[in-house]
Amino acid sequence: MTDAQYFEQTPTGSIDRGSLTSTALSLAGLDTHEVVEILERLPPHRAAVLYRLLEKDRALAVFDALEPAIQADLLAGLRADEVRTLFASLDPDDRAQLVDEVPAKVAVRLLEDLPPADRQDTAEVLGYPSGTVGRRMSPHFANVHPDATAAEALDLVRAQARRAETVYSVVVTGSGRELVGVASLREIIASDPTVRVSELMSEPIFVEATEDAEKAAHLLVDHAFLLLPVVDTEQRLLGILTLDDAAQILREEADEDAARAGGAEPLRRPYLSTSVFRIAKSRVVWLLILAISGLLTVQVLEIFETTLDQAVVLAMFIPLLTGMGGNTGSQAASTVTRAIAVGDVRSSDVGRVFLREVRVGFVLGVLLGSLGFLLTAVFYNLPTGIVIGTTIVSVCTMAAAVGGVMPLIAKAIKVDPAVFSTPFITTFCDATGLVIYFSIAKAVLGL
Amino acid sequence: MTDAQYFEQTPTGSIDRGSLTSTALSLAGLDTHEVVEILERLPPHRAAVLYRLLEKDRALAVFDALEPAIQADLLAGLRADEVRTLFASLDPDDRAQLVDEVPAKVAVRLLEDLPPADRQDTAEVLGYPSGTVGRRMSPHFANVHPDATAAEALDLVRAQARRAETVYSVVVTGSGRELVGVASLREIIASDPTVRVSELMSEPIFVEATEDAEKAAHLLVDHAFLLLPVVDTEQRLLGILTLDDAAQILREEADEDAARAGGAEPLRRPYLSTSVFRIAKSRVVWLLILAISGLLTVQVLEIFETTLDQAVVLAMFIPLLTGMGGNTGSQAASTVTRAIAVGDVRSSDVGRVFLREVRVGFVLGVLLGSLGFLLTAVFYNLPTGIVIGTTIVSVCTMAAAVGGVMPLIAKAIKVDPAVFSTPFITTFCDATGLVIYFSIAKAVLGL
Repeated sequence: MTDAQYFEQTPTGSIDRGSLTSTALSLAGLDTHEVVEILERLPPHRAAVLYRLLEKDRALAVFDALEPAIQADLLAGLRADEVRTLFASLDPDDRAQLVDEVPAKVAVRLLEDLPPADRQDTAEVLGYPSGTVGRRMSPHFANVHPDATAAEALDLVRAQARRAETVYSVVVTGSGRELVGVASLREIIASDPTVRVSELMSEPIFVEATEDAEKAAHLLVDHAFLLLPVVDTEQRLLGILTLDDAAQILREEADEDAARAGGAEPLRRPYLSTSVFRIAKSRVVWLLILAISGLLTVQVLEIFETTLDQAVVLAMFIPLLTGMGGNTGSQAASTVTRAIAVGDVRSSDVGRVFLREVRVGFVLGVLLGSLGFLLTAVFYNLPTGIVIGTTIVSVCTMAAAVGGVMPLIAKAIKVDPAVFSTPFITTFCDATGLVIYFSIAKAVLGL
Repeated sequence: MTDAQYFEQTPTGSIDRGSLTSTALSLAGLDTHEVVEILERLPPHRAAVLYRLLEKDRALAVFDALEPAIQADLLAGLRADEVRTLFASLDPDDRAQLVDEVPAKVAVRLLEDLPPADRQDTAEVLGYPSGTVGRRMSPHFANVHPDATAAEALDLVRAQARRAETVYSVVVTGSGRELVGVASLREIIASDPTVRVSELMSEPIFVEATEDAEKAAHLLVDHAFLLLPVVDTEQRLLGILTLDDAAQILREEADEDAARAGGAEPLRRPYLSTSVFRIAKSRVVWLLILAISGLLTVQVLEIFETTLDQAVVLAMFIPLLTGMGGNTGSQAASTVTRAIAVGDVRSSDVGRVFLREVRVGFVLGVLLGSLGFLLTAVFYNLPTGIVIGTTIVSVCTMAAAVGGVMPLIAKAIKVDPAVFSTPFITTFCDATGLVIYFSIAKAVLGL
């Protein structure tokens, strides 16, 4: 893997410290993707210095590949004419993403400075709300008429090749711009040149511009398409969602899921170039919510204060038992959350999931509970062993069922399933687990 | 989103219960991707019944799109000649994947029944160990000579269009099959027909067949390529990794990460068609490891038994404090794990990450600690307030630092960072947090 090796031999440290000339030379030896990686690891002011050392064509390509938040940081450090050129060089959909990241005043000025045709393209994309596929579509596609022959279609594609975002899938539209099909360039090339496009094309699978961008991205990727036509309510073609853009949307989604599974909001920019304050901010809300729900455990323990007073030994197993419940619950939750994400499980499956997880939890509980019973019965005494053993069975069964069902409930009430994952379930199982534990202890020990 | 809507109107339930004829008719109305979704939600024996209702061409396409584990299940329910046809219809790399899923005896018979050319292709792919890109590459690519003109190249691509996995990127090889470049079909089409391929092609970025498949998939996707050439040690072309296959590899990786972040092994097959026993098995090892490390908390509490006896009130805050530590730790861990996964953070950044997380943890700790101090001082008493407040500050700082650094240590010792995530860190922070808590309590309360 030559370029990765090369990259390893060019640590950012040396670029930071080297003179500007030698830095410009070492940058020239890297490919665009590598320069992007370096810029995304630097604090904003340093990134701007380094960025200005790039030669012009390279600078455009690098800017295009940066995340919108980093693009916005860079713009703040550049001259007005540099900003104008960069902004005009972006595709309309990428431009719309960037507009969301800069202050409103800057955005208005940037848009005013665009050439009229670009401004109109961008306005159309910006006309759709954030999060819709309309906001992420590109108006630059290759299209042909269904009556064209394969040879004519190839010429048409050739003529559109420079401007279109992709030419490998071609949108087939009628005279009123209505979508009638999608043809692959492979079919067009491989066919008899006299065959009409209408015989080569397949039924289009498409989305309306107001559709959720993530749904559209999944649709495209699941079908292994190279593009997805985006239409208005009358099925007239507005633009296309390309594979690149779909991959970017899915990556943002994965970032969000990963962050939320850990109980935080996504940073939306690379970790090392994010300030400590911003990182803390991304976590504090969830931490507060969890801490407040954690107060529940204090209240549960207050209820059982006399029981605790009578048998302090019970306190020693609290972290072990709550931990076990939390772990079982988060295992179930992450399995089901993932199954929802990849489309294996839907809201209507809630009953099947519940039954499955109750059984899985019970199997795991019996296994761990027997072990817990043996250890405690030997090292403490038989009654404590019985309390610990039965508590583990009950807690595991409860936790797996709750952990499995929670993501589906979240989905049904339109909350991100990942939000209900690990930390939330841990806290829930902590409180419920304690009630189970002390109820069993009171009954068995006769307190 | 027409096809998704259609899909929603065709619940699996009705297909299960309907007569075979009407089922065959309703299947005919669905697209391949939808049939795959339905099959992956059914238990194996039902999936086989349904699968045999598909017409032949459709059956091949559906089989191709199924996950290898489900393919293996299906084969068990089909006749020998059906199995032979299906197996021969797969691409060599997909065939290799399936061979890994069926019993060794079956695999040998399947391979013997292949036509000689297919058998050789497959043997080449199978010659590389599981997990390498050689095992996932396809030997069916379009290639041209660097001296060919654009017009000649287009004809060559046309001739190879039926067999090649993709024609949109063309591999340029010299007379000894040595890799010299990669040309995009877009460039070939858009150029003057007399220009030579050597002027159109770009420097190839490639991998050796023994390289890790995940690394290769990331390389391809990060560069937004359509294919990645796979070569031997002398840079002779062996095959290509296509975007489809890279996406599949990354999806498997994401499945694994999601499962491990929740403390389980990936199921490798859709949730609803996996048996309860298999699900329990995927979780039991991690649960046991966590339970055993959870015994640490019992031992820590035993050390502080006299302290607990003297102030039972301390027991009430145990779940709250350990929960807070676990949450802070898992937030940090999932942020850093994700940053590693997308390449924003490397092992050498361990110092920067540590300093960052100590500061983030301290900021969060001071905020939550002040709140905890106030609440406890008011509802209990001042000394308890001081104990709780300082414990929260210390636990949050420690947990964030540990949570942030753990994934990097995991990476350095070549363990999957996701494994060290949520549940592991929770358990670690539980024990350490308890030591901090009781040490502070002893000092402040003078026990």
